[in-house]
Amino acid sequence: MAPAGPLAEITVVDLSRVLAGPYCTMVLADLGARVIKVEKPDGGDDARQFGPFVQGRSAYFASLNRGKESIALDLKAERDRNILHRLLARADVLVENFRPGTLDRLGLGWDDLHRRHPRLIYAAVSGFGRTGPYATRPAYDLVVQAMGGMMSLTGHPGTAPTRVGTSIGDITAGLFAAVGINAALVHRAVSGQGMLVDVAMLDGQVAILENAIARFGATGQSPGPLGARHPSIAPFDAFACADGYIVIAAGNDALFRTLCIAMGRSDLPDNPLFRSNESRTTHQAALKAELESVLQTNAAAHWLDVLAAAGVPAGPINGIDQVLADPHVQARTMVIRAAPRPGTDTLADADGPVMAGNPVKLSAFPDPAVRPQAPDLDADRDRILAELGWPPDPGS
Amino acid sequence: MAPAGPLAEITVVDLSRVLAGPYCTMVLADLGARVIKVEKPDGGDDARQFGPFVQGRSAYFASLNRGKESIALDLKAERDRNILHRLLARADVLVENFRPGTLDRLGLGWDDLHRRHPRLIYAAVSGFGRTGPYATRPAYDLVVQAMGGMMSLTGHPGTAPTRVGTSIGDITAGLFAAVGINAALVHRAVSGQGMLVDVAMLDGQVAILENAIARFGATGQSPGPLGARHPSIAPFDAFACADGYIVIAAGNDALFRTLCIAMGRSDLPDNPLFRSNESRTTHQAALKAELESVLQTNAAAHWLDVLAAAGVPAGPINGIDQVLADPHVQARTMVIRAAPRPGTDTLADADGPVMAGNPVKLSAFPDPAVRPQAPDLDADRDRILAELGWPPDPGS
Repeated sequence: MAPAGPLAEITVVDLSRVLAGPYCTMVLADLGARVIKVEKPDGGDDARQFGPFVQGRSAYFASLNRGKESIALDLKAERDRNILHRLLARADVLVENFRPGTLDRLGLGWDDLHRRHPRLIYAAVSGFGRTGPYATRPAYDLVVQAMGGMMSLTGHPGTAPTRVGTSIGDITAGLFAAVGINAALVHRAVSGQGMLVDVAMLDGQVAILENAIARFGATGQSPGPLGARHPSIAPFDAFACADGYIVIAAGNDALFRTLCIAMGRSDLPDNPLFRSNESRTTHQAALKAELESVLQTNAAAHWLDVLAAAGVPAGPINGIDQVLADPHVQARTMVIRAAPRPGTDTLADADGPVMAGNPVKLSAFPDPAVRPQAPDLDADRDRILAELGWPPDPGS
Repeated sequence: MAPAGPLAEITVVDLSRVLAGPYCTMVLADLGARVIKVEKPDGGDDARQFGPFVQGRSAYFASLNRGKESIALDLKAERDRNILHRLLARADVLVENFRPGTLDRLGLGWDDLHRRHPRLIYAAVSGFGRTGPYATRPAYDLVVQAMGGMMSLTGHPGTAPTRVGTSIGDITAGLFAAVGINAALVHRAVSGQGMLVDVAMLDGQVAILENAIARFGATGQSPGPLGARHPSIAPFDAFACADGYIVIAAGNDALFRTLCIAMGRSDLPDNPLFRSNESRTTHQAALKAELESVLQTNAAAHWLDVLAAAGVPAGPINGIDQVLADPHVQARTMVIRAAPRPGTDTLADADGPVMAGNPVKLSAFPDPAVRPQAPDLDADRDRILAELGWPPDPGS
């Protein structure tokens, strides 16, 4: 079921649920890994219950679990743990996002599994990681966005707190886990040994704070939110045209001059307030008023044409409908659909749930616009058990 | 100079500048890869000029380029291109984030390099990628956050557009590139061939839209910004206490009941408006008013203690100062400093720039709290040229 890709030789046993772990294994599956999703028999991955639903199936679950296989196992039952060990004996990677300690209590923790399956790479994604004082605390995306500083940088000054509009805490952790798993695979080719990859959602938030930490370190001041603008580049903001906003990012003097000429305001670069990026940043409110006084004389689409022709970085603030309809986004195969799984009665291709494509484009492999549909719970049980030779021959 | 890590056998030649490419190679360097930064002789990476400065060096540049080496080469000069080819002949990976076409015009594009160095993995990070109608357009983070839909989901309804407070467009692209590079390394062990990894910042934004695409696909409605709250979970929001905001994320009925009991409002779960998550989401404004009427009777710190004791996911909205001082963040080695490079007169350890640590924690390798300082421009020239046997022996 896995598509052609650089990880085609790799098998991932995926015990993870909801978002951070499944996002990691989605990335691996998109790169060709075989991902066998091991779900609890009673309902499976919680995300199967998350709306909205398309023809009775969660569209959210569908997008995160495309191209994976499913088998239901009760990890509290010895028989099913034995099946899991057979799976792990043939697998390269285990991914889980239980709270630290949960799998240890079932004899399925890193220490136990490393002893039994020394080549297995064990990736654990959790809210706070496996060490440190908060290790066993529960976390959701919102909690790590808040505790990790991202919310302190996002929003407009003076408004109520603002979350990044997608679950960047989960997604970033999933990406760091995918990086770590692949690096561990590279190393295993040399060492022959697996390793534990421990990724915390909170750590991932700290790791993407970017210039905020450097600014705090140099000045002792915690930066606050700035709406849409940049702390040290101007103009770099959202600007109001006659019928709505566009963004403009003129990151250096040459681009600023080009912008001003394109807008018919070649006087602005010679204004002492706006002569350097530093000065423009100091006087960004005055600069914004000057630019908007011109922009508001015409529509956003007009100005985007003018700025594109001049080569000034600018763009529309697209809603999701506009993103999915964008000809460039489509040309990059970033809007894809789920194909029916062989032997499953299901939707026609064109009716499958719409989802984001794989942003890792590789010259050596195709980038299909249709990916295999997410599995129903336990859909691959018979085939997987047959591969494992389960149940064992009573004579053996 | 590279620390111990799973990529210790890997050498990366890094032609990238500013953020997306350097973030990718920082992640690889943190995992042990040797990263040789090739910079233009005239000033090097533009980010060297970005404030704030610590003892004359950009703190921003320092955090992104720790653990790397530097050599200055003029890629327009044949002699320096010959040095680059000697470097590439011994390297595993090339990373660049020029606008598509720039390196091709110097004879250093993917086609040329793949012919000459067939095992080399070539990772190109750009605003819009190497294909599609916008391929050659300039982009900054703000532009892809706007065009990719992230800004349409972030902020409070009715306010001016809101950018995610860090350059998530660059950072996400850097992470996808790191995933792709490592996957290509895994594959090269089988195939013996390098490949092109083409990552667009815009594609990366589409890839992290998460449930927004599924919601649009199922309903035909483009979701808008929701402040700090979740579209389909309640309570999952920022709430005002007597002295400031905290976040609370009670993602299911059991947690909601626990929350209400801990707050002394065991009546709320039996209120018909709040009996199910779906109903709580519909009536989230009324629920928020009920919860805040209690929360505002005491301080944030009090409520965080109460909720932690009850096991309800909750947390403070930390500023950068609080993030860096957090005992858990420190225990996870997520606050690190740059160590002096051998042979460089520089800061004492404790005075080096503060930066985020490596969020990929690996059982097989140490996770040092001090990483080698970023190089000054061309700092490693002599040693690198000597390794390459340059200049060539005139007799050979």
